[in-house]
Amino acid sequence: MAHDTLRGERTVSRDDVAALAAGAAIFGTGGGGAVYTSQLAVEVALDEHGPVRLLTVDELGPDDAVIIMSGMGAPTVGIEMLTAVGQVERLLEEAERIAGRRITAIMAAEIGGSNGVAPVGWAARLGVAVLDADGMGRAFPEATMISMNVAGIPCEFAVMADVVGNVSTIRSIDLSWLERQARALTVASGGLCLGAHYLLTSETAPGAVIEGTVSRAIEVGHALLSAAEPVTGVAETLGASVLIRGKIIDVEQRTEGGFVRGSVTIAGTGDDRDRLQRVELQNENLVVIEDGEVLVSVPDLVTIVDAETGHAISTELLRFGQRVAVLAWACDPLWRTERGLELAGPQAFGYDIPYVPFGEGEKR
Amino acid sequence: MAHDTLRGERTVSRDDVAALAAGAAIFGTGGGGAVYTSQLAVEVALDEHGPVRLLTVDELGPDDAVIIMSGMGAPTVGIEMLTAVGQVERLLEEAERIAGRRITAIMAAEIGGSNGVAPVGWAARLGVAVLDADGMGRAFPEATMISMNVAGIPCEFAVMADVVGNVSTIRSIDLSWLERQARALTVASGGLCLGAHYLLTSETAPGAVIEGTVSRAIEVGHALLSAAEPVTGVAETLGASVLIRGKIIDVEQRTEGGFVRGSVTIAGTGDDRDRLQRVELQNENLVVIEDGEVLVSVPDLVTIVDAETGHAISTELLRFGQRVAVLAWACDPLWRTERGLELAGPQAFGYDIPYVPFGEGEKR
Repeated sequence: MAHDTLRGERTVSRDDVAALAAGAAIFGTGGGGAVYTSQLAVEVALDEHGPVRLLTVDELGPDDAVIIMSGMGAPTVGIEMLTAVGQVERLLEEAERIAGRRITAIMAAEIGGSNGVAPVGWAARLGVAVLDADGMGRAFPEATMISMNVAGIPCEFAVMADVVGNVSTIRSIDLSWLERQARALTVASGGLCLGAHYLLTSETAPGAVIEGTVSRAIEVGHALLSAAEPVTGVAETLGASVLIRGKIIDVEQRTEGGFVRGSVTIAGTGDDRDRLQRVELQNENLVVIEDGEVLVSVPDLVTIVDAETGHAISTELLRFGQRVAVLAWACDPLWRTERGLELAGPQAFGYDIPYVPFGEGEKR
Repeated sequence: MAHDTLRGERTVSRDDVAALAAGAAIFGTGGGGAVYTSQLAVEVALDEHGPVRLLTVDELGPDDAVIIMSGMGAPTVGIEMLTAVGQVERLLEEAERIAGRRITAIMAAEIGGSNGVAPVGWAARLGVAVLDADGMGRAFPEATMISMNVAGIPCEFAVMADVVGNVSTIRSIDLSWLERQARALTVASGGLCLGAHYLLTSETAPGAVIEGTVSRAIEVGHALLSAAEPVTGVAETLGASVLIRGKIIDVEQRTEGGFVRGSVTIAGTGDDRDRLQRVELQNENLVVIEDGEVLVSVPDLVTIVDAETGHAISTELLRFGQRVAVLAWACDPLWRTERGLELAGPQAFGYDIPYVPFGEGEKR
């Protein structure tokens, strides 16, 4: 199973993992799952196997095959994976059997949250590279909201491996069916699975993935962890606007159909006093409203961070009284295409508002 | 997809289908699903494609590969299959891809009920043979209750195809996991799937399947349809005992966890007057009791038939006042082994009674 990965100049080392986790949480825009257990798993894997080679899309050669790997199911998936000896190896083995070729790199489905962190550890254990890219450039709740789907690349198969040793392959007519069947299998396996899907090559990857997001998450994380003023440091590194600094004065949340839905209201403090912003959320932060006006909406990115530490606060951990800052920045141009907005614009989440690109031409 | 099947002397023709259906219902021991819709589907397939070659296990050559095909999910599966153009072809294609070889014959998982009938139509459409054998010699409710499991043959993979075009492959650590995952996928696909599992060869099939059951079901069905005294004709052809002839005076049924459970009480008439028998059932008829004594129990076979027509009455159609006869006969010797009884003896169904072989040495 050990593959050779001597190409590429850059690596992700043990010292980058905390930064990757902090950055992935920022790109999680409130969702994507808690990063800490994945961070621990990746640190253990890198301690054991050494740094992981980070390949750019440009560096892919004709013999390269990249597959997306991600955890499915309960948010605790990251820590459970530590205990399932052989699970990631079984997954790769079956994916290679179905693909009929050697897989040389894995890619994160979403850079945001735990699924942006865990692939580095899986790559270390498998001896393969990590592609410096992902399929969302953030976190999204649905399997259909992925860049390859925007680009029109079909998903020929998905492989799933559970903790007891079962391995399944799904060939679905579309991503909605894939998600439905994969979730059914995940539940049947006790709620935890590791999945591999979307085989990409040097031919199909360019234009179909969001490039540079792993190194960008690490860069943002390092800024967060080292800046004297973390919020400012993160915003500058991201090219993000700080929409407001203030205090959470209301949190309204309910769990519906497996999603956290609700809103959080922030009252400005300091220079922002007398201002009030509401963030609408569904797992992720989706829309920011002030004085009845939409300031920013999905697919552009909104992250609520701790005002002191700069760490992202995930939607389920928002509480009355927290001192926070709201950051917003532009999404990848791919999401602003007609197909991108159809899949992941405000209307895809049930908001009857037009999409107005955030910070057009100035922030990114 | 059209395969060559010129070996074997015997065929199943259009004129055998009604007999196969009637016989499969007898072997269904009250369960296995209604045969009529499968009968119609098979008649249509044979009208279109002609007779299907029936291969014995002895006739299998080194190039043969046999796979079990069966419907999963709702009992209406038989008629739905008629409308899913390409479903059985997709299933075979994927099974051949996973197996890495051509599949030359299919086998019924269970000869009892609709899954004993439908494979003949699928074989006609695929241009492959049907193996004159099955995995149960009757109907059973669980995927683990299959002869290959008694014989210790592992199931390396199962392929499932649904009506919309999704195809999945499951590699499970055991049959219980396979059943759990296959059911989850079936439900996700709307409750109907066609499955293929257990690849068998001329090396592995002997001793691991119950031989001759397709031709035996046809023979029993022809006796049923042609005899002046159908009940007697069926019993003689089967080598079965007529335990009682009488009238149903009580039916107690409840649906629990997807199973029909309950009992039916029959009061003897004619020569059997003053006698009373109770048949305990869980989808299938499992135990017959008279005067507190167990007359016969699973895995031996018990079928309640219409006293006039000889046709089997499935458990969900038993009603007060029906005139019936209860037939009982010995199961295949494979089910009387230690492993066979562990999987499908009375205790496997929750009855705290010892298994006493029915009609030992005289009836079969």
